[in-house]
Amino acid sequence: MGLVRKLAAEGLGTALLLAIVIGSGVMAEQLSGGNVALALLANTAATVGGLYVLIEVFGPISGAHFNPAVSAVMAWRGELPRAALPPYVLAQLAGAVLGAWLAHAMFELPLLQFSTKLRSGTGQWVAEAVATFGLLLVILRAPAGRASSMVAAYIGAAYWFTASTSFANPAAAFGRMFSDSFAGIAPACVPGFVAAQLAGAALAVLAHRALGAFRP
Amino acid sequence: MGLVRKLAAEGLGTALLLAIVIGSGVMAEQLSGGNVALALLANTAATVGGLYVLIEVFGPISGAHFNPAVSAVMAWRGELPRAALPPYVLAQLAGAVLGAWLAHAMFELPLLQFSTKLRSGTGQWVAEAVATFGLLLVILRAPAGRASSMVAAYIGAAYWFTASTSFANPAAAFGRMFSDSFAGIAPACVPGFVAAQLAGAALAVLAHRALGAFRP
Amino acid sequence: MGLVRKLAAEGLGTALLLAIVIGSGVMAEQLSGGNVALALLANTAATVGGLYVLIEVFGPISGAHFNPAVSAVMAWRGELPRAALPPYVLAQLAGAVLGAWLAHAMFELPLLQFSTKLRSGTGQWVAEAVATFGLLLVILRAPAGRASSMVAAYIGAAYWFTASTSFANPAAAFGRMFSDSFAGIAPACVPGFVAAQLAGAALAVLAHRALGAFRP
Amino acid sequence: MGLVRKLAAEGLGTALLLAIVIGSGVMAEQLSGGNVALALLANTAATVGGLYVLIEVFGPISGAHFNPAVSAVMAWRGELPRAALPPYVLAQLAGAVLGAWLAHAMFELPLLQFSTKLRSGTGQWVAEAVATFGLLLVILRAPAGRASSMVAAYIGAAYWFTASTSFANPAAAFGRMFSDSFAGIAPACVPGFVAAQLAGAALAVLAHRALGAFRP
Repeated sequence: MGLVRKLAAEGLGTALLLAIVIGSGVMAEQLSGGNVALALLANTAATVGGLYVLIEVFGPISGAHFNPAVSAVMAWRGELPRAALPPYVLAQLAGAVLGAWLAHAMFELPLLQFSTKLRSGTGQWVAEAVATFGLLLVILRAPAGRASSMVAAYIGAAYWFTASTSFANPAAAFGRMFSDSFAGIAPACVPGFVAAQLAGAALAVLAHRALGAFRP
Repeated sequence: MGLVRKLAAEGLGTALLLAIVIGSGVMAEQLSGGNVALALLANTAATVGGLYVLIEVFGPISGAHFNPAVSAVMAWRGELPRAALPPYVLAQLAGAVLGAWLAHAMFELPLLQFSTKLRSGTGQWVAEAVATFGLLLVILRAPAGRASSMVAAYIGAAYWFTASTSFANPAAAFGRMFSDSFAGIAPACVPGFVAAQLAGAALAVLAHRALGAFRP
Repeated sequence: MGLVRKLAAEGLGTALLLAIVIGSGVMAEQLSGGNVALALLANTAATVGGLYVLIEVFGPISGAHFNPAVSAVMAWRGELPRAALPPYVLAQLAGAVLGAWLAHAMFELPLLQFSTKLRSGTGQWVAEAVATFGLLLVILRAPAGRASSMVAAYIGAAYWFTASTSFANPAAAFGRMFSDSFAGIAPACVPGFVAAQLAGAALAVLAHRALGAFRP
Repeated sequence: MGLVRKLAAEGLGTALLLAIVIGSGVMAEQLSGGNVALALLANTAATVGGLYVLIEVFGPISGAHFNPAVSAVMAWRGELPRAALPPYVLAQLAGAVLGAWLAHAMFELPLLQFSTKLRSGTGQWVAEAVATFGLLLVILRAPAGRASSMVAAYIGAAYWFTASTSFANPAAAFGRMFSDSFAGIAPACVPGFVAAQLAGAALAVLAHRALGAFRP
C-alpha cells in the first residue's frame, strides 16, 4: 500500500481522534454543570470507544499510530521506514489541528482558538512520562489482535491515574493547544509535555528490551 | 434465508434498538434529577450494550442494518439486492415507530406522541454528517467478527463527540420523532438530519474507496 | 459431569449473582447520597462485570443458567434432561436466598429481611416480559463463545431500557424479595413478575423459531 | 525466561497496578467534590482498564500475579516453583510501595505517608474473604485467553458488591497502607484484611476441586 494512503490514514485517523477527545470534552463540560469528575468520566468513555475503533479501522493501512512518539519508536525499531517518519509526523500534526477545528465546527464554536489552560510542573511532567511509558510498553508487547482493546483500555485508565489525564502523544498536545476547552492545553505548556512524553517513550523501549524482547 | 425472515429481523431489531434508545432515555431522565450529563451517560451505556447484542443476534439473518443509510450503501455496493432495499427501509421505519411505542408502553406514557425537541442548525448538521460518515467507515472496514463491538463502541463515542448525540440513522430519526422525551427530535427537524446523514454516508463511501477497498 | 456438581454450580453461581446484584445495590445506595441514576449506573456496571465472569466460570459445568426461565426453556428444547429441571430450579432458588444473605452479612445488615419496594402495574409487567423475551432470544441465538459477553451486555442495557430494571429471572425475583434494599421487590409483587417473565420467555421461543432455528 | 525477568515483571506490574489504584483514587477524590459514588465509579473504571492491560502485558513473562495470595496458590498447585514464592512476594510488596510513591509523585503529594482510613469489622472481613474467593475461582477456572478480561471484570464488580471494595490482594493492602488517600487502609487494619484474603483463597482452592478440576 502506498505512502500516500498511509499518510491519509494517519491524517484522517488523528483528526478523528482529536475530534473525539475535544468534542466529547466540550459536550461533557456543557452538560455536566461544573461536575468535573462526571465530565472526565464521559470524556474517558468516548475516548476509549473511539480509540478502539480508530485503531481497528486504520491499523491495517498505516499502523494507526496517530502519535509521533509511537512513529519515532517504530522508525527506530525498523518497523517504519525512516524516510516515512517526517511525513507521518506532519500528517499527524495536520490531522490533529483539523480535528480540533472539526470539533469546534460541530459545536458552533470559533474555529481558531488557543487554550489558556495551564498544565505544567513536576507532577504533570512525571505523569506524562509515566503515561507515555505505559502506552509504548502496551504497544510493544500487545499480543496479536489485542492492540486496539489494550491501547483503548490503557488510555482510559491513564486519564484517571496520571495527574495530567494522559495526553501521552505529542500530536494530541499540539492539537489540543488549538482548543480553549475542557481538553485544551496552553501553547506555552506544550514543550514540557512533549519532552516528558519522549522521555517516557525512550524509557519504555529500554524496559521492553530488559523484559525480553520476545515473548515465549 | 427468505426475504420475509430478513424483513422480520430488520423490523424486530430496529424496534428493539429504538426501545433501547428511547426507553433508556426516559429512565435516565426520570432518575437523574436534571443532571443531563449523567442521563446521557446512562443512555450511552444502554445503547452500546444493546447495539452490540442486536448486531450479534440479527446479523446472521439480515445483516443487522437497522438503518436505511446502511442498507442504501449495501445496495449500492451490491451486497444487498436492489429490489430488497425498499422493503428493508419500510421494515426499519415501521420497526422504529413500534419500538418507540413499546418504550412508551413500558413506562406507562401515552403511546402516540410527537417530540418538541428542536435539533437543527449548521453545527447539528455537520455533526450528523460526521457521525454517519464514521459509522459507515466503521461498517465498511470492520475486520470479520468485530463489526458488533466496533459499531457499538463507535456509537458510544459519537453520542458524546458529535454535537447532535449521533443519530446517524434515518430510521432512528424517524422513530425518535414519535417520542416527546430525552431522545426525541421534533418532526420538522428530521429532514435536515436525514439529509446530513445521507451526505455523510456518501462521503464515507468515497473515503473507503480512497483508502483502498481491500485490506492487505 | 455428575448432576451434583451441576447443582452445586447453579447454586453457587446464583448465590454469587444475587450477592453481586444486591450487594452492589446496597453499596451504591449508601454512597450515592440519593442520586438514583448514579446508584443504578453503579449497580449496572457491577452486574454486567459479574454476569460475564459467572457465565464463563460456571458455563462449562452446568450451563450457567442461574435462572428457572432459562432452565425451563432448555428442558423444553431437550438441552437439559427434563428430570434435571426441578433440582436445577431448587438449587437456583436456594442459591438466590443465600446470595441475598451473603450480601447482608458483608454490609452488616440483618440477615433476614423482606423487601417493601412495590414493583407492579401494566408497565412493569410489559417491561419484565420484554426483558425476558430479549434475554432468551440472546441466549438462544448467541454465537459460540459469545454468550457470556452478550448476556452481560444485554442485561446492562435492560437495566435501563425496561421500566422494571430487568429482573428477567424468577430466581432473581425470589432472592431480591429477601432484601429490603435498592434491588429489592415486595413479596406480593413477585408472582406478577414471574408470570410476565415466563410469558416473555415463551414469546422468545416462538420468535426464535420464526426467525429460523439454524443460523446460515 | 529467567527468574530475574519474572521478578522484574512482578515488581513493575504491581507498581503500575498500585499507581493505577491509588492515582485514580486521588484524581477521583479531587474532582468529585465529595460525591463518593462518582469517585468509586471512576476508581473502578481505571482499575478495570488497567488490570486488563497489565495482565496481558506481564502475563507471558511472570504469570502476572501481582498478588501474594495468587502466587501462594500457584506454588501450592505446583504451577510456580516453591523456591520462587518468597522472591515473588518480595517483588510484589516492593512494587506495591513504589507504586504508591509513584502516584504521590504524579499528584505532588508527600511521598511517604500512612493511611488513617479504618477498614475493619466482621462485615469487612467477610467481604475480603468473599472477594478473594471469587478472584481465585476466576483465575483457576478462566478459559485460555480470557483471564485478563475476566479478572478485570470481576474486580470491577467486586469494588461494588463487597463491602470492602475488594482489595483481594495482600500486596495491594500493603501498598495502600502507604497512602493517606481515597484508596488507603490504616496499617493496623492490614493484618485482618490479609488473614481474610488468605482464608478466601483457601476456600477457592477447595471449591475449585469440588467443582471438578478439569473442564469437559
